[in-house]
Amino acid sequence: MIEIVDVIGSGRVGAACAARLRERGVVVRPDGAALVLLCVPDGAIADVAARIEPGPWVAHVSGATPLAALEPHRRRFSLHPLQTIVLSRGPEQLDGAFAALTAEGDEARATGTWLAEMLGLRPFALADADRALYHAGAAVASNYLVTLHAAAARLVTAAGAPPEALLPLMRRTIDNGFELTGPIQRGDWTTVDAHLAAIHERAPELEPAYRALADLTAAGAAA
Amino acid sequence: MIEIVDVIGSGRVGAACAARLRERGVVVRPDGAALVLLCVPDGAIADVAARIEPGPWVAHVSGATPLAALEPHRRRFSLHPLQTIVLSRGPEQLDGAFAALTAEGDEARATGTWLAEMLGLRPFALADADRALYHAGAAVASNYLVTLHAAAARLVTAAGAPPEALLPLMRRTIDNGFELTGPIQRGDWTTVDAHLAAIHERAPELEPAYRALADLTAAGAAA
Repeated sequence: MIEIVDVIGSGRVGAACAARLRERGVVVRPDGAALVLLCVPDGAIADVAARIEPGPWVAHVSGATPLAALEPHRRRFSLHPLQTIVLSRGPEQLDGAFAALTAEGDEARATGTWLAEMLGLRPFALADADRALYHAGAAVASNYLVTLHAAAARLVTAAGAPPEALLPLMRRTIDNGFELTGPIQRGDWTTVDAHLAAIHERAPELEPAYRALADLTAAGAAA
Repeated sequence: MIEIVDVIGSGRVGAACAARLRERGVVVRPDGAALVLLCVPDGAIADVAARIEPGPWVAHVSGATPLAALEPHRRRFSLHPLQTIVLSRGPEQLDGAFAALTAEGDEARATGTWLAEMLGLRPFALADADRALYHAGAAVASNYLVTLHAAAARLVTAAGAPPEALLPLMRRTIDNGFELTGPIQRGDWTTVDAHLAAIHERAPELEPAYRALADLTAAGAAA
């Protein structure tokens, strides 16, 4: 369908996308590109898009940025890989990940679906107006998982326990389909109070997050 | 070393421990037990312990409960499997998990280590005074991971996206050694503000937790 793609930006996502397209036989270069894929920081998308001569498809890979950032282009879409991509790994990072496709019209949807499948991604449709809410969910799932682990590691380390002991626990929590166990599931608020007293004394910077998550957990356990 | 163990309590942990001990050839019954393993709710440990005739080893599997709950017994210890255990699975749930061993003296430590290894657990030493802090870390890692996933699923579902799309993202975040990516890592506060505006409008119950975790993430990214 498309033989030449121009990938602008060689950060985490741009590097993985360019490498994957080349693996699949797509030519990656500016000259004669039928699709320009913007893998630049969110704040640079509108500037870079405005400098592209109208003609080819223009797309971005940002999670939260609306399609309007691609003005003046009408042949446009967004494809956001719902994955955490690191520079130390290659295009195999895209395999099996889902991706949010925001497209207006059948031709844009078909082009975006082609790109997703070429990259190894599983596309789903996302409305332009819902992008910020969707991307907040992605940030909670990934970025705040990093923070949750850091907080838990801080607590067990302060207690003299090895932080690597948390890994089998966290993996199993996912494998168990996020079935809630522990004191809040049992309605054991004495233990929660003991946690809060220990955190207040020895890791007070974690107290607001612990309290906010305890409230949400209790609401979920009651629901 | 010990041939008969009395396991009191047949909830999640008690059922898994009794099944594993039987698998390993240990007799599980009250009569003649050299070790009584209390797998009862935290609030019941002291009552049940006080009713046991002194003589055998007495141990509990609670995360946060101090050894003093095992009064009047002196031959005592605590072994807390750092794992989320569900009733729908068997003793294989214990395999590879770590476990916090709190024991006073060499003989108690040896007995607790024997039990951990018999159960398939990897024991580490935990001081009695550090139990609440340690257990808070365990609850953050597991119970609040359930809550984090529920919050993320709520957001992407409200945005019309499939919540199962979060699973490859969360697993990869762990596989990548919790390397932070995303807007806070990039210092992109415009996107964080867009998240907060969307959450405020469409999922306001998540706002306190989002803010608390954003603050912690920013502190970690800056550290």
